Amino acid sequence: MSMNESRKQQLDGMLQQRGAGAFLFWRPDELVLTLGYLPHWGISFLLYPRDGEPVLFVPELEPEDILPAGIAVHTFPWGVLDGPDPWEELYAGIRGVLKVRGLHRLPLSFTKDIGRSAPCRMAGEQAPLPPGLCDRLSLLCLGGYIETDTESLYTVKTPQDIAALEVTHRVATLAVRTFYRNLQPGKTEAAVAAAVEAAVQEATGSEGVDYAKAWGLVQSGINTAAAGRFNRSTGKALAAGEGVLLELSICINGYWADITRVGQTGQLPPVHKKIVDIVAEAQAAAIESMRPGVAMEVIDERARRVIRAAGYGDHFAHGLGHHVGFRYHDPGPGLWPGSRALLRPGMILTVEPGIYGVDIACGARIEDNVLVTEDGYRILSDYYRDLTI
Amino acid sequence: MSMNESRKQQLDGMLQQRGAGAFLFWRPDELVLTLGYLPHWGISFLLYPRDGEPVLFVPELEPEDILPAGIAVHTFPWGVLDGPDPWEELYAGIRGVLKVRGLHRLPLSFTKDIGRSAPCRMAGEQAPLPPGLCDRLSLLCLGGYIETDTESLYTVKTPQDIAALEVTHRVATLAVRTFYRNLQPGKTEAAVAAAVEAAVQEATGSEGVDYAKAWGLVQSGINTAAAGRFNRSTGKALAAGEGVLLELSICINGYWADITRVGQTGQLPPVHKKIVDIVAEAQAAAIESMRPGVAMEVIDERARRVIRAAGYGDHFAHGLGHHVGFRYHDPGPGLWPGSRALLRPGMILTVEPGIYGVDIACGARIEDNVLVTEDGYRILSDYYRDLTI
Repeated sequence: MSMNESRKQQLDGMLQQRGAGAFLFWRPDELVLTLGYLPHWGISFLLYPRDGEPVLFVPELEPEDILPAGIAVHTFPWGVLDGPDPWEELYAGIRGVLKVRGLHRLPLSFTKDIGRSAPCRMAGEQAPLPPGLCDRLSLLCLGGYIETDTESLYTVKTPQDIAALEVTHRVATLAVRTFYRNLQPGKTEAAVAAAVEAAVQEATGSEGVDYAKAWGLVQSGINTAAAGRFNRSTGKALAAGEGVLLELSICINGYWADITRVGQTGQLPPVHKKIVDIVAEAQAAAIESMRPGVAMEVIDERARRVIRAAGYGDHFAHGLGHHVGFRYHDPGPGLWPGSRALLRPGMILTVEPGIYGVDIACGARIEDNVLVTEDGYRILSDYYRDLTI
Repeated sequence: MSMNESRKQQLDGMLQQRGAGAFLFWRPDELVLTLGYLPHWGISFLLYPRDGEPVLFVPELEPEDILPAGIAVHTFPWGVLDGPDPWEELYAGIRGVLKVRGLHRLPLSFTKDIGRSAPCRMAGEQAPLPPGLCDRLSLLCLGGYIETDTESLYTVKTPQDIAALEVTHRVATLAVRTFYRNLQPGKTEAAVAAAVEAAVQEATGSEGVDYAKAWGLVQSGINTAAAGRFNRSTGKALAAGEGVLLELSICINGYWADITRVGQTGQLPPVHKKIVDIVAEAQAAAIESMRPGVAMEVIDERARRVIRAAGYGDHFAHGLGHHVGFRYHDPGPGLWPGSRALLRPGMILTVEPGIYGVDIACGARIEDNVLVTEDGYRILSDYYRDLTI
């Protein structure tokens, strides 16, 4: 995949407006949203200048076959025994490109913020970024540094992004089906989660799927009461007649979905069945109101009103939804009280009302990913949403 | 688990020596090595002052049952709809404790470096740290900020740490056995990896295992040639008579192992068998030389000499080993050329010679985790190390 054309236009406009000489993108999700490239090691850098072609800097050890097509690639010697300091080579390389293009007297723009960004393919540890990376990068240009406000890059998806996310949801269907099929008394929450994650990873190599990774978090029975505070899988075995909640984050080729389902191992206790029905009704009411121009707080209120009317207003203590696609949680204003931003075509938001409480000894949430279209909405995760399949 | 006593003595000495008023630990692996506590959300902070008892700051949404015993816990309102700015509450809380103890005129010491640190339990995204966290923390004390050189906290494990790591290796045994049992032609690399990861997650809730997560990276046949540059699992199916390499990182309750094995789907090609034998010989030669007082470069050279003598010196382009236990890769001087540091009791190092090459169309590495004892060594990963089981 070569660089996303509509993204390029957006970046060019932002550079002009801010008077920066170039953007430097380094977080894994930034490389996905610009190049469709999820780095292996997490230490790749896209230099996107206001004049001339962009350059991608990658460590020598990066797998060649995952590099994006149609862009100049420079390597730096990270991971080489007895080589020079790889980071000095990288800094010199970036400075060199900017100097040749006469852009080093303008500020370099990037973000220092790492919170909530997506992991690279080597998700078992933080990427091997050197101490003081951002401080060093901010001194590369005579023109200094300005912060990149990246929010607008995340909140509206391009047609290419949406096509990539459809692949993600195709694989997520397998994950959700595997969840329902594993709802057997005696299995532990962790075993159900393991089966869900395995179903996703096994899709690696299927059509259009180069990298497939999921995190499944499964809570059953009394443990669902905490699902509004945290999600996790414990060694508790599922019992008969219990509700079971799956919180799923899934990354296919760098593109993310965030889905919640509630299933059952048999007839649910009445209160649990009741809150599942309320949550489903609240979700439907919210989604039906989604179209361009509607304020986000209005969508939130649609769901919140249903839950409040049913007497569970205090049991829904989180926002209704957030942007999703390049991360588990994309940044930007979302569906919550007081959020005045308007829905726009190309936005993808989670819609995830929930009711939870120790007093009712249970909890439920249903979460879907909804694309705002020109004249309404489309549910990208429109599969398996009932208590059983 | 309450706070590690020998770690406390070490921290007290370090604070005196550096003239700091308190340490602030926030990276997940720092919380494990001080408190044996792996945070769920990854936004917990241990304030360890030179006078008085330490205080642990955690977000309100943190699960209570994973909090360490025997320490004062303060919460801040992260994740609460319509609450105050949670980070201002946290900063005020830290400053308040330091002021009451008269320590706010001394520098606060912490590390800003996030590279290669361990993920928290919510490993599907970077912890939700706010922008500018470290800059804000560095302004909390009138005495300013000094960097913590944390290396010495990682390099020598306490008896408590070693006991915890023995649990990790007990679970890792299951993972490695699952790997060998799945070496069937037709299965994809990703499917074998998924089975290994599932076996680990399914151990959640077994004796002493609260949290269990693994990353298995499986390369087969020609793909093993790249295993010195990167490890990953693709959709390639295993063929008959192939070598298969497993790179495994595994985290049990916050304690990590890093293991590599080579198996086979049937009789290996002669050159692949040959390099496996050389690597095994090199590893044995290195491990046998491990005891307190020996320089790290000497251990590296023991292995490198065997590989060089066999004619594959150029095919072993990485170091022999690194510290391990609180992360996939603990910091500190390791087993590589020019590393003059001496082995000390309590160190745990990987020993992982390898031979890889496109010219030989294959690669092999065997990796174990070796504890340096008072009079020699003990292999913590002393299980299943041959081509078949």
